[in-house]
Amino acid sequence: MSGIWGKNVQVSIFGESHGVAIGITINGLPPGLEVDMEQVLFEMARRAPGRNELTTPRKEKDQPEILSGLLDGKTTGAPLTAIIWNTNTRSKDYSLLKNVMRPGQADYPGRVRYKGHNDHRGSGHFSGRITAPLVFAGAICKQWLAQKGVTVGAHIQSIGMIEDESFADQKEVTLEQIRSFKEQQLPLFNVEKETEMKDLIVEAKEDGDSVGGVVETFVLGLDAGYGNPFFDSVESQLAHLVFAVPAIKGIEFGTGFDIAKMRGSEANDEYYYDEHGQIKTRSNNNGGIIGGITYGMPVVFRAAVKPPASIKKKQQTINVEEGKAAELEVEGRHDPCIVPRVLPVLEAVTALGLMDLMMGGQHHE
Amino acid sequence: MSGIWGKNVQVSIFGESHGVAIGITINGLPPGLEVDMEQVLFEMARRAPGRNELTTPRKEKDQPEILSGLLDGKTTGAPLTAIIWNTNTRSKDYSLLKNVMRPGQADYPGRVRYKGHNDHRGSGHFSGRITAPLVFAGAICKQWLAQKGVTVGAHIQSIGMIEDESFADQKEVTLEQIRSFKEQQLPLFNVEKETEMKDLIVEAKEDGDSVGGVVETFVLGLDAGYGNPFFDSVESQLAHLVFAVPAIKGIEFGTGFDIAKMRGSEANDEYYYDEHGQIKTRSNNNGGIIGGITYGMPVVFRAAVKPPASIKKKQQTINVEEGKAAELEVEGRHDPCIVPRVLPVLEAVTALGLMDLMMGGQHHE
Amino acid sequence: MSGIWGKNVQVSIFGESHGVAIGITINGLPPGLEVDMEQVLFEMARRAPGRNELTTPRKEKDQPEILSGLLDGKTTGAPLTAIIWNTNTRSKDYSLLKNVMRPGQADYPGRVRYKGHNDHRGSGHFSGRITAPLVFAGAICKQWLAQKGVTVGAHIQSIGMIEDESFADQKEVTLEQIRSFKEQQLPLFNVEKETEMKDLIVEAKEDGDSVGGVVETFVLGLDAGYGNPFFDSVESQLAHLVFAVPAIKGIEFGTGFDIAKMRGSEANDEYYYDEHGQIKTRSNNNGGIIGGITYGMPVVFRAAVKPPASIKKKQQTINVEEGKAAELEVEGRHDPCIVPRVLPVLEAVTALGLMDLMMGGQHHE
Amino acid sequence: MSGIWGKNVQVSIFGESHGVAIGITINGLPPGLEVDMEQVLFEMARRAPGRNELTTPRKEKDQPEILSGLLDGKTTGAPLTAIIWNTNTRSKDYSLLKNVMRPGQADYPGRVRYKGHNDHRGSGHFSGRITAPLVFAGAICKQWLAQKGVTVGAHIQSIGMIEDESFADQKEVTLEQIRSFKEQQLPLFNVEKETEMKDLIVEAKEDGDSVGGVVETFVLGLDAGYGNPFFDSVESQLAHLVFAVPAIKGIEFGTGFDIAKMRGSEANDEYYYDEHGQIKTRSNNNGGIIGGITYGMPVVFRAAVKPPASIKKKQQTINVEEGKAAELEVEGRHDPCIVPRVLPVLEAVTALGLMDLMMGGQHHE
Repeated sequence: MSGIWGKNVQVSIFGESHGVAIGITINGLPPGLEVDMEQVLFEMARRAPGRNELTTPRKEKDQPEILSGLLDGKTTGAPLTAIIWNTNTRSKDYSLLKNVMRPGQADYPGRVRYKGHNDHRGSGHFSGRITAPLVFAGAICKQWLAQKGVTVGAHIQSIGMIEDESFADQKEVTLEQIRSFKEQQLPLFNVEKETEMKDLIVEAKEDGDSVGGVVETFVLGLDAGYGNPFFDSVESQLAHLVFAVPAIKGIEFGTGFDIAKMRGSEANDEYYYDEHGQIKTRSNNNGGIIGGITYGMPVVFRAAVKPPASIKKKQQTINVEEGKAAELEVEGRHDPCIVPRVLPVLEAVTALGLMDLMMGGQHHE
Repeated sequence: MSGIWGKNVQVSIFGESHGVAIGITINGLPPGLEVDMEQVLFEMARRAPGRNELTTPRKEKDQPEILSGLLDGKTTGAPLTAIIWNTNTRSKDYSLLKNVMRPGQADYPGRVRYKGHNDHRGSGHFSGRITAPLVFAGAICKQWLAQKGVTVGAHIQSIGMIEDESFADQKEVTLEQIRSFKEQQLPLFNVEKETEMKDLIVEAKEDGDSVGGVVETFVLGLDAGYGNPFFDSVESQLAHLVFAVPAIKGIEFGTGFDIAKMRGSEANDEYYYDEHGQIKTRSNNNGGIIGGITYGMPVVFRAAVKPPASIKKKQQTINVEEGKAAELEVEGRHDPCIVPRVLPVLEAVTALGLMDLMMGGQHHE
Repeated sequence: MSGIWGKNVQVSIFGESHGVAIGITINGLPPGLEVDMEQVLFEMARRAPGRNELTTPRKEKDQPEILSGLLDGKTTGAPLTAIIWNTNTRSKDYSLLKNVMRPGQADYPGRVRYKGHNDHRGSGHFSGRITAPLVFAGAICKQWLAQKGVTVGAHIQSIGMIEDESFADQKEVTLEQIRSFKEQQLPLFNVEKETEMKDLIVEAKEDGDSVGGVVETFVLGLDAGYGNPFFDSVESQLAHLVFAVPAIKGIEFGTGFDIAKMRGSEANDEYYYDEHGQIKTRSNNNGGIIGGITYGMPVVFRAAVKPPASIKKKQQTINVEEGKAAELEVEGRHDPCIVPRVLPVLEAVTALGLMDLMMGGQHHE
Repeated sequence: MSGIWGKNVQVSIFGESHGVAIGITINGLPPGLEVDMEQVLFEMARRAPGRNELTTPRKEKDQPEILSGLLDGKTTGAPLTAIIWNTNTRSKDYSLLKNVMRPGQADYPGRVRYKGHNDHRGSGHFSGRITAPLVFAGAICKQWLAQKGVTVGAHIQSIGMIEDESFADQKEVTLEQIRSFKEQQLPLFNVEKETEMKDLIVEAKEDGDSVGGVVETFVLGLDAGYGNPFFDSVESQLAHLVFAVPAIKGIEFGTGFDIAKMRGSEANDEYYYDEHGQIKTRSNNNGGIIGGITYGMPVVFRAAVKPPASIKKKQQTINVEEGKAAELEVEGRHDPCIVPRVLPVLEAVTALGLMDLMMGGQHHE
């Protein structure tokens, strides 16, 4: 099983990068939800390639066609399916690579897993392109969340060694700021880092190489009481989805790995009543989640994005058909850094994960 | 839903730390599996409290009683249920804490989630004690994995700021070494760090405080071809379970967050044929998993364990019944550091996650 | 997988008839639900053996011990586990039967399925005794349903050829009537059939034989709008659970198989507004469910219960160890008719199925 | 949740009868399965409308377009999605019916369930048309089953009061016979009943009315040892899917409701070794399943199909917008009897249910 996820909101994804179309079916959307399609297209454009010099020049329109589940702009309650046709595929670019295993790509594990029958053209079903339907779904989930006062935002925590400030460093993060982040190529708290980051990416590109980075995602407006102890903890729910996104190799909540260096007296987030009588914590080292359940502070996590495996530089590898060593120079149109394009995908799966959780109820009724 | 997990091997956990008993039901164990109960008890003893000066002096025997699913030492194929009676519970220690929310504990989110009906005695169902049944299940899974040539091991990567060497630093890790790790209080590659780590723990204890750390888990002998792209990636599967373990705040696979600082040419794990014609990679930055699927190298991940929230030091918090600020000094028998006790739990859920995955087939038949 | 069922209320059953104990874990019960334990014991006694001359003289107390999930008589929201110890087991009765396959029992299919490792003593995990935990769970679900105004009742539609009137024949069925049904050995609309039915059962018993029958279950007070089209139809939900009860070979909703003989103009249930403005249908041929969804009329279904396979009469069968024909006379204490004992089990799984459905929401919020 | 089903083979259906397209995604198909598309189209044509005078004159081509998961005629192992465009939709026929609830249709329960937002045109997502994708999936499953020696067949057991012979009455049913059944408008063991049945259907049509019937499905070549006790019994698995098919109101396995009238000595299926040393039973009253598990004899069940609710005859009902009684004469192109078109759908879900079961393993390995 690989293409289906969810309990209360269930998604089923499909498609190969060089097949006929990719798409998604969403089950469990409440009937009567008005879908702002412009917002959906806006979110999808954030992920789409070819927007600027930092990404692959390959242009895909990522225009979803809705097949079911929507009537007069509102959800019907029946499964909502959207597809995106694959139009700009150059299969020839990839045809020689069936037997030469690209390092860092799913070529070899996928070949074993699917006994060589998997679609090898442009990574096939393993392609990052399959995240476009996730962004589609996430955009709808965000609209539902907005009605509940919940907002998902994200910024680039780092590209290579260059670090932005953290969410925890901010006095306040406004909805306006989150909106403006979505307009930016590199959403940053400290915009002075932008040039440095861009230079790093362009430099890698010119070397025929690539760079990675870290995305920090945060959720505002989430009440206390969502989630569960053990298997269905909020962390389990979100981490499961985040690791479903290609290229993610780590996730940490709140202070994350640094909390392991703290003492308990420092790590514990002390409660207090604020001036409105709201229960808050002075620090948020637990990233909004304790015992698998939200406590009313922002949910915050960082995800590590590896540098794209498709690089022009010559690499050593193997030819599995010939059973011997091979050299490889991957031609084609590649992203020198996918962090800015992964960011909206992470927002999307976060929205999906939270909506699924919230539809299960804050507490049993 | 919180107590049930799994697809091919399904577990259902239950119990509260100060209730009658805790336990687990395991579905899907293959019939005829011989269960070495000594090995099971050995694994459970590794997690049990009271073993030495580094843990809580509270002694619980963690003796499982098997109710079903085992006949003449072999699994029957029917659900296997084991319970552990709660014997050494001092409810009085906790009775005053119903309304004063302990920072860093699930008291407050649990209270909201369960409308105040949750068992508040000794953290109730949120207690780390509920991981004992997971270790029981993991011990059985390990025996099944052993038959397939798969071994799960772990060492302490760090306590506070004190670091052990990493798995990636080792030329070779033998099964003998893994076995010896299981005998040790603080399993380390570099045993010279042991005294330093112990001192740090004892020091925190004397201060009425606590310390955290990082556990590195590794899996040897796992073939290429297990796992799936997207939602059922090996990373999703393992991260889901690892975040089901109380106190975990981060997970990273392979080089993890550091891969975000690399260039693609450095991060990509180049393939080669070894002298036996086996396909291997020169580095293992992806931690044995690409595209959600294993590629035959060790699966490696690190998990961040926060310092125990129960400390003697005075803390500021709130009394939710009175609706005002409160001071708190938690009495009772607490662990100054739970890293050594969390380690076998992480091994256990890893074994469970892998067995579930492997029973689904390396590739569809 | 066999022991776990449910989405919003999940149950996990375990145990073998001659093992240590049988039991159940219930996940998803809302916190704070007051459990009337007398009612639970009353329901369990209805299913228990040895109550009268119509059932096996084997006496099992079916006394549940609650291990978790209940505090001061209320659910905590954590998994609720109850076990029933096996005390009155005479393993000797069954020891010779390991290799001689009893016709109509699960001996042979179970042996193949579990490669001979299944517990063969007294049907092991296949025993009808494992339905006792289901009655326990159903009794709690009924208490939740009662709060929502929903009542589950059942009567014996037939024993052998002797038929009771049907639910559809009644002008009205009151809650009082349903309560009185629960007190009766053979709950019937037409009590004049009782003697005839009893005689039939006793006659079969004296012949060393057994008889089957049909149970009709009905649900009052269920609003319109529960259920789903296709896979999660109310019929799918209930039929799935009903066929989980041993000995059931058929289920039909509303007019059932007889609707296949009708014309559409006769079968269609015409809507009208009653004197209170409530939407009702003049007939109820669809048994309260159309398009997989309730429409506010009683949900009604009948289930066929086969005659118990364990009979004293000599039977022809095979000895699988010797690979040849064998004769069999099953000694021991058997039920000549299990219809009266299956009836509360059917009520129980109906309550469970409905609560699971209702907790998912009448319509998405 | 309503559109997703399955564990090892998972399907996700979508679409509304008058929307853009309907379709299905199949997860878990083994990679490398050659799909004979002619066979798929043949099966789909069996269900399609407009084939003869017995069905609606509405012609829909039911031509699937495959979007993913198939490469060079073989499954890739990735999700396989197929859609069928809706071309021949006359929305005007249905536009007046938004507020007048058609008896026997899902109009009213669907309206409550989806708060009036469901697509009301031509029954929307409740339409029997959504079974076309199920037949598509079933056709692929049948090809997989054929490789395992398993064949699914069906005949019409009855139309109205007119009965065919039963499967149990046949000495032998050959694969040739099953193939010929698929070619026939009304597949029957006793072909002499064909004219009588046709006359009955045509007569109902001329009266502006409709008739129901019963379909008997049988599975040949299924080994002993598939299935599970309790929740995942073969009966639960198949009944769940069969009740997902619109218009089904009952299901019975083997002798079904008639077994309830038998004595145990008659109902028990006695085992014997046949001349090849194969274990068989002399009767098959249990329909191939005991204890939820197959025993190597044919799996046999009958399903009751209600008469189509859409009839021309005048009916009494309500107008929910006006809140008062209304009269209704449903215009449009309707089937006087859907039994022949439901038959291939029942075969399809049976194939799907069995493949899902068989991929889980005959017994745990």
